[in-house]
Amino acid sequence: MTPSTHDEPRRLAAIDLGSNSFHLLVANYQHERFQVTAKYGEKVQLAAGLDDDLRLSDEAMQRAMECLARFAPFVADIDPRHLRIVGTQTLRMASNGQELIAHAEALLGHEVEIVSGREEARLIYLGVAHSLADVHGRRFILDIGGGSTEFIIGERFEPQALESLEMGCVSYTRRFFAEGTIDESRFRQAEIAALYEVESIRQPFLQLGWSDPVGTSGTIRNVAAIVSAEGASVEGIIRRDALFRLRQQLIDCGHVDQLALVGLKPDRARVFPAGVAVLCAVFEAFDLPFLRYSDGALREGILYDLIGRNTPEDSRLKTLDGLDLRYATDRRQAANVVASAMAAFDQVAEAWQLGDEQRQLLAWAARLHEIGLAVSHSQFHRHGAYLLEHSDLPGFSRTDQRGLAFLVRAHRRKFPIKELKEFPATVRQRYARLARLLRLAAILNHSRPETPPDDVTLGVEGDVLLVTLPGGLTGSALLLGALEQEKNYQLAAGYQLEIIPGAR
Amino acid sequence: MTPSTHDEPRRLAAIDLGSNSFHLLVANYQHERFQVTAKYGEKVQLAAGLDDDLRLSDEAMQRAMECLARFAPFVADIDPRHLRIVGTQTLRMASNGQELIAHAEALLGHEVEIVSGREEARLIYLGVAHSLADVHGRRFILDIGGGSTEFIIGERFEPQALESLEMGCVSYTRRFFAEGTIDESRFRQAEIAALYEVESIRQPFLQLGWSDPVGTSGTIRNVAAIVSAEGASVEGIIRRDALFRLRQQLIDCGHVDQLALVGLKPDRARVFPAGVAVLCAVFEAFDLPFLRYSDGALREGILYDLIGRNTPEDSRLKTLDGLDLRYATDRRQAANVVASAMAAFDQVAEAWQLGDEQRQLLAWAARLHEIGLAVSHSQFHRHGAYLLEHSDLPGFSRTDQRGLAFLVRAHRRKFPIKELKEFPATVRQRYARLARLLRLAAILNHSRPETPPDDVTLGVEGDVLLVTLPGGLTGSALLLGALEQEKNYQLAAGYQLEIIPGAR
Repeated sequence: MTPSTHDEPRRLAAIDLGSNSFHLLVANYQHERFQVTAKYGEKVQLAAGLDDDLRLSDEAMQRAMECLARFAPFVADIDPRHLRIVGTQTLRMASNGQELIAHAEALLGHEVEIVSGREEARLIYLGVAHSLADVHGRRFILDIGGGSTEFIIGERFEPQALESLEMGCVSYTRRFFAEGTIDESRFRQAEIAALYEVESIRQPFLQLGWSDPVGTSGTIRNVAAIVSAEGASVEGIIRRDALFRLRQQLIDCGHVDQLALVGLKPDRARVFPAGVAVLCAVFEAFDLPFLRYSDGALREGILYDLIGRNTPEDSRLKTLDGLDLRYATDRRQAANVVASAMAAFDQVAEAWQLGDEQRQLLAWAARLHEIGLAVSHSQFHRHGAYLLEHSDLPGFSRTDQRGLAFLVRAHRRKFPIKELKEFPATVRQRYARLARLLRLAAILNHSRPETPPDDVTLGVEGDVLLVTLPGGLTGSALLLGALEQEKNYQLAAGYQLEIIPGAR
Repeated sequence: MTPSTHDEPRRLAAIDLGSNSFHLLVANYQHERFQVTAKYGEKVQLAAGLDDDLRLSDEAMQRAMECLARFAPFVADIDPRHLRIVGTQTLRMASNGQELIAHAEALLGHEVEIVSGREEARLIYLGVAHSLADVHGRRFILDIGGGSTEFIIGERFEPQALESLEMGCVSYTRRFFAEGTIDESRFRQAEIAALYEVESIRQPFLQLGWSDPVGTSGTIRNVAAIVSAEGASVEGIIRRDALFRLRQQLIDCGHVDQLALVGLKPDRARVFPAGVAVLCAVFEAFDLPFLRYSDGALREGILYDLIGRNTPEDSRLKTLDGLDLRYATDRRQAANVVASAMAAFDQVAEAWQLGDEQRQLLAWAARLHEIGLAVSHSQFHRHGAYLLEHSDLPGFSRTDQRGLAFLVRAHRRKFPIKELKEFPATVRQRYARLARLLRLAAILNHSRPETPPDDVTLGVEGDVLLVTLPGGLTGSALLLGALEQEKNYQLAAGYQLEIIPGAR
C-alpha cells in the first residue's frame, strides 16, 4: 500500500445504512484533525419495510435508493480505501438484503458491507469516545437504533465489552405500537420484552461497572431535547425522573398522532414511544440515575477507524492476534505461507489486475488458513471458513469475512466452484485468482519447512498460471506429485496450471 | 448412574467395523483384570466395496451383515453401557454408511457409532499402551488400517499427539494396485502418495521424538511374521533392512497371485503390497531403524476406555475442560443450567422413559450450551452446534456429538423441527424431550443468577409438560414473559407446555 503522508489532506467518508435513518458524513483529515464537509441524515425507515418473512418491501427499497441517489455525488470520487458504507440490523436480517446492496453498489460505485452487531458496537464506541472529553474512568454507552441497540463499556479508546441486542425503535414499533395507540399495557409489554433482552448482558456489565453513562442516536437525542426544553434537566442530561415523567406524558397522549404535544416532529413521532420504552427498560435494568447525550455515533466511528487502519492501532491486528491465540495456530507455518503467497502475488498482480486490497486479503487468508485445525484435522479448511464467516472479528467487514472464508475454504483439496459462484460476477475472477495463489503457497510449504522455499517464479498468460521451480525443488518427488495433483484440481475447475521444472 | 462395585465381574464388548476387517472382542473384567471370552476377526474388506462416488456396494453391505450376524449372539445381552460398536474410515466416507448402520443396529440391538480419526487414534493408543510393558519414555505408535492410518506419540497412558491420515491398505490397493500387478513404478507412486500425506505431520512428530516405535494391526503383523519366519529379524521386530528386502521380493513376484511365495495367505495377499508401501513410506519419512509389533489395537482400547468411564480417568472430562478453556465459557452459568436441567430431568425421567444415558447427554449439553458465544452472540446456538458436531472430542462418539449438537442447536429460539427429523425415528422423541428440558433450564437461568432457582416443579401428561413455579418466581414479569414465548415456540413444534404460577 502506498504510504500516505499525514501532511496531505485525505478525504474520508462514511455512509450508515441504518434501520431507521441513513447517514452520510464526509470530512477532510489533516494534521490529525477532521474538518466535516458534508453531513446528512434521512429517515428512510428501512426496518418499517420488513414484512413478517423478513423481506424488504419494494417501497422501502425505493426510499433507500432515492436517499442514496442524493448521497452518491458526495462519494463518487473518494478513494475506496478512505470510505466505508455499512448496513446494520435490518440488512443483517432482510432475506433480500443482497438485492438492495447490489443496487446500492451499482449506484454508488463502491462496495457496501453489512457489519455484525459487535462491529457496529465497536464503531459506535470509537465515534462516541472521540466526541467526549478524554476523562479517566469507565463509560457506559447506549445506542438505541431502529433495529438493534448497542451496549458498550470502555475506557478512553478501548472498548471492554461490546454487545448488540436485537431490539430497536422501528422493530418495537411494529411489535408493540403498530396501530399508533399508546397505553400503559402496550408500553409495559415493550419494556418487558426489552428487559428480557437486556437480562442476558446485565450481570457482566454491572460487574465491569462505570462512572459515566452516555447515550447516542435519534431516540436519545430527542428525549434529551424534550426534557431540557421543559427545563426538567440540564441540557443534554436525561434524568431518571424526567424520563419517567415523559413516559407518563406519552401514555396520557394515547396515540402517536397526538405527540406534537410533547414537541416532536411528525416523522420522528411514529417510532418514538417504542424508543422511549427501550430507554426506560435500560434505565430500569441498570438502575441508571441519568444518561448524558453525545452526538458521536457510528458514522464518526467509521472515520476514526479508517484513519487508524494500516497503523499500529489497526484494530484488525488485535483481532488476528486473538484468533492466533484462541485457535493455537502454528505461527511459523502461517508466516511462511504468507511469505510465499506475497511473493507469488507480487509476480502476477499487474498482469492479473490485482490491487492493494486483494494483496491484504490474501495475506490475511494465508495467516489464518489453518485455524480450522483447532476444530479437527479432517476438513479443516471447511471449519476455518465457518469460523471466519461467522465470528465477530472487530475491524473486519462482513465482505472481508466472506472473502477470507472463501479463500480458506478454497486453499486445499477440490476447488470449490459452487462456493465461488455465490459471489457477484464482478469479484469472482479476483477471488479465484487469489485462491489459486494461496493454494500454491500452501503446497510449497506443505512439509512445514523452517523457511519458505524461494526462487519460485510465476508468470501468467491470460488465466493460465505458469510456475517455474528452482533446481533445488525439482528434485522433490513429493512436491512434484502434489503440484501434479494440483494441476488436476485446477483443471477440474477450468483453470490451467503449468509446472516448469528448473534445471537441477 | 448405578455405581457398579469393582468386585462383581462386568462383561464388556467391542466391535470394530474396520475398513479391512471386522473384529469382535468380549471380555470379563474383574479385580482390575480382563479375561477374554471371545475374539474374532473377519476380512470383510468394506473399503473394497466403495465405488468412485463413495457408495458402498450391495455385496460389501452383505459381507458386512453376514459377519455381524455371526457376531450378534455374543453381544445380545450385554449392558449397552459396557459395549461400543465403532465404524472407522470407510464408514466415515461412505455416502450410504447410515444405511449399513441402521441395518447393523437392528440386527445387533445396539447403537453403532462412527468415530473420528483422532478418536480412533486415541483408542488405538489405549489398546497398545496397555499391551506394552510399563516403561518410561515416549512411544511412537503406527496403525495401518484399511482406510486410514493412525499415528500417535504418547507416554504411559497419555497420548501427546494423535493423527489419522486418509490412507490405508485397502484404499491404496484400489488406487495403485487395482489389477494386482506389482512393479517398482506402482510401488513408488504409492509410497510418494503416502509420503505426501505423512509430510503434514512429520515435523511436529519428529520434534516430540520417541524412544520406542511400535506398530499394530494386520499389515504390520504380517510383515513381522514374514521377516521373522525368514530369520531376518528378532521375533516381532521389523528391521529396516528386512522390510526393504521384503519390498524388493514383492516387486520381484510381480503380481499378487504369486505372493504365496513370501508366505502370505491369499485373503491377505491382495491388500498386502499397498500396506507394505505405506509402511515403507513411514520408515522413510521418520527414518525408523526398526518397528516393534504389538497386538494391542482399537478393540482393546475400547474395552480399556469403557472401564475408565465415569471415573476420574474418564477422558471425556478432560475434553470438556479443554472446551471450557478454548471457548472461555461462563462456568458458573453452565453449572447453574446443568443443575436446573438435572432437577428437571429427575422429575420427569420415569414418566418420559429417559435413562442414564439421556441424563448424561443432557448434562453435557447444558454444560456446553454457550460455547458458541466465543464465535458470536448472534445465533450462538448454531455456532455451538457446529463446533460440537465437527470438533475432535476425545472420548465422545460421533453419535454423542450429533446428539449434543442437536441439543445445543435447539436450546433457544425456534424449536428446530427440521434438524430433529434428521435423526432416526427411534431417537427423535427422546431428543425432543431432552431439548425441551434444556430450553426450560436455560430460561430459568436467563438472568444469570448466582444460584439456579429451585422449587420449580415439573410434571408430564403424555407429551404435555407442566411447569409449576414457586411463589418467588411468579412475581417475575420477565420470566413469565419468556415462558409465555416458550409456550408458543413449543406449540409451533407441536408440543404443549403449561405454566402454572405458584401462590405468591
